Amino acid sequence: MTVKSNKGVILKAYPKGIPKLDENFELTHRTIDIECLNLKENEFILRNLYLSIDPYVRVTLQDPTSIIMKYSKGVLTGQVVNGLGVSEVVKTNNPNYKVGDLVYGPIGWEEYSYIKSDDASVSSFMLVNKELLKDTPLSYHASFLKFGGLTSYASLIDIGKPKEGETIYISTAAGLTGQLVGQIAKIKGLRVVGSTGSDEKVDFLLNELKFDAAFNYKKVDLDKALSEYCPNGIDIYYDNVGGKTLEVALEHCNRFARVVACGMISQYHVTNPEERYGVKNLTNIVLKSMIFQGFVVTDYFGKDIEKEFDKDIIEWIKSGKIIYKETVIDGVENIAKTFVDMLNGKNIGKYIVKIADY
Amino acid sequence: MTVKSNKGVILKAYPKGIPKLDENFELTHRTIDIECLNLKENEFILRNLYLSIDPYVRVTLQDPTSIIMKYSKGVLTGQVVNGLGVSEVVKTNNPNYKVGDLVYGPIGWEEYSYIKSDDASVSSFMLVNKELLKDTPLSYHASFLKFGGLTSYASLIDIGKPKEGETIYISTAAGLTGQLVGQIAKIKGLRVVGSTGSDEKVDFLLNELKFDAAFNYKKVDLDKALSEYCPNGIDIYYDNVGGKTLEVALEHCNRFARVVACGMISQYHVTNPEERYGVKNLTNIVLKSMIFQGFVVTDYFGKDIEKEFDKDIIEWIKSGKIIYKETVIDGVENIAKTFVDMLNGKNIGKYIVKIADY
Repeated sequence: MTVKSNKGVILKAYPKGIPKLDENFELTHRTIDIECLNLKENEFILRNLYLSIDPYVRVTLQDPTSIIMKYSKGVLTGQVVNGLGVSEVVKTNNPNYKVGDLVYGPIGWEEYSYIKSDDASVSSFMLVNKELLKDTPLSYHASFLKFGGLTSYASLIDIGKPKEGETIYISTAAGLTGQLVGQIAKIKGLRVVGSTGSDEKVDFLLNELKFDAAFNYKKVDLDKALSEYCPNGIDIYYDNVGGKTLEVALEHCNRFARVVACGMISQYHVTNPEERYGVKNLTNIVLKSMIFQGFVVTDYFGKDIEKEFDKDIIEWIKSGKIIYKETVIDGVENIAKTFVDMLNGKNIGKYIVKIADY
Repeated sequence: MTVKSNKGVILKAYPKGIPKLDENFELTHRTIDIECLNLKENEFILRNLYLSIDPYVRVTLQDPTSIIMKYSKGVLTGQVVNGLGVSEVVKTNNPNYKVGDLVYGPIGWEEYSYIKSDDASVSSFMLVNKELLKDTPLSYHASFLKFGGLTSYASLIDIGKPKEGETIYISTAAGLTGQLVGQIAKIKGLRVVGSTGSDEKVDFLLNELKFDAAFNYKKVDLDKALSEYCPNGIDIYYDNVGGKTLEVALEHCNRFARVVACGMISQYHVTNPEERYGVKNLTNIVLKSMIFQGFVVTDYFGKDIEKEFDKDIIEWIKSGKIIYKETVIDGVENIAKTFVDMLNGKNIGKYIVKIADY
């Protein structure tokens, strides 16, 4: 009996604003017959284990005519949504992977992913180093030890250029990216200030991650909060939000400040270009000789900084210098809900969905 | 008889929008008694020869309570306006300068400038290398061979990182900065596209400076023009304008494009922060891994790039690789009018005011 359940989540309709569970997603009960599938050259089949729940996925769920889709490959209605995760190879006609290998890469929101030879993703998978499983749980490999952690590390070091004694302000500081950026900045000797969306998360930043200051952006005036918590101005603004938050932060930036443009979560939901927030004070960039730089994590693949990350992060985890907080939710049927919860700011730390036991 | 005329231009009222000649400026007829002035240590008196007419001066003419003045030292009403120029030392108690030296630096819009020991500018002057006067007229030293040229050169090389075969788009391409950026980019093998505000200037860019394409921004739809003239997208946007022009250019930028934020002339006149243009598409910076970087030319002083500029620019002038177009206007009484004309886009090439014969 090789026919197996292959439940998956498809996009039912393009969301407007923050997606709604029943309106935009649908769980489909499909099956897959692994033994009978005839794999072409380079193809392989994955049993998905842990899925990372990331904000960037929202960008892929836009109407293909939307302006933002000029730069990003999207999911069409009726298709399975994609995300990053860690999986086990269960059948393969690809010389790079053998049965039993653990791989990391772009999988579907589903139990099994059939990676076809004409998928762009066929060459995007990386082997998980099983040696590392002695020191780290497998769930860490769904994001933290790959794209998620490298995102924080490489962008902070390469664009932020942190120097001891400087001040960094991080928006959405309690997400995976923010929590790691903050902790690395502490290791480098910076004053670390973060904002987040609940008092519980503020406690987490202050008491567990040892940020120098943290505040609930829903309860304060941002301009006043930055005056209070960044009395020497901002040298690095790690921006996950864009829009009005970016505008206010620019006013507090020092000469030669760096803005790491990691994401603009406030703008991803806005499908009508006219309704996007207009940032009015870009003269700050000129007058203060600032750098405002975007990146995607793939820019750093194969660079030295990737190897430095692999080395540092394991050392920091083992020595307890870095805490990584994740919440693991069980079951493919909970992926869409977890994603919506994350966009609504319900997570503390990183949301991971466990799809199957390893 | 050592009492000399020292006519100068004072700021009569803080301008709103583009300054108006009679409303905002006033010519004062003062005198200076050079012999009787008792110079303290480090002080000196300059006979001003050539004054550079630059857009940045507009930034210094803001109400001191205006938001833009947080980062820039301004001129108060009743004070002489300042600009950059080249002058002859006529009296000195400063060990760095002797009578007869030619110096370059921040002078007043006046016939003689008395540089006091407590002026911030006292240490901002540089000696003009008289050797260079064999190959270059003195007027070139009022801007082109110092701040003006270095502005173009250093920012293009350091931030723009031009590579052969790439496309650069330059706004206000017929000004000093634009014309030099374009010509250096041609030397580096780029496709050079410029916009400017009159058909006459378009001819100048195409026929004299040999730009690959140029257009009159007043007569075209910018989005369509960029599609037509930058068919492979923009790799470097050299921004002198900001606002809506920046917004449209961002849409045409390629992955890894660099925006050199040299100035935002469209925004300097806007004193009410709420009326500034809001740029709505900064998600481009994230999604296309772009760099958007500001600078002021003083960032490059004393760096290697300054020496490289000094060497390259003289060689390019002598070999005819670089054309420099300036319009020299006579007389201190014409400074304010020339400045207003420049802001209204009447100049082709660089406006210089000759204050006195050398």
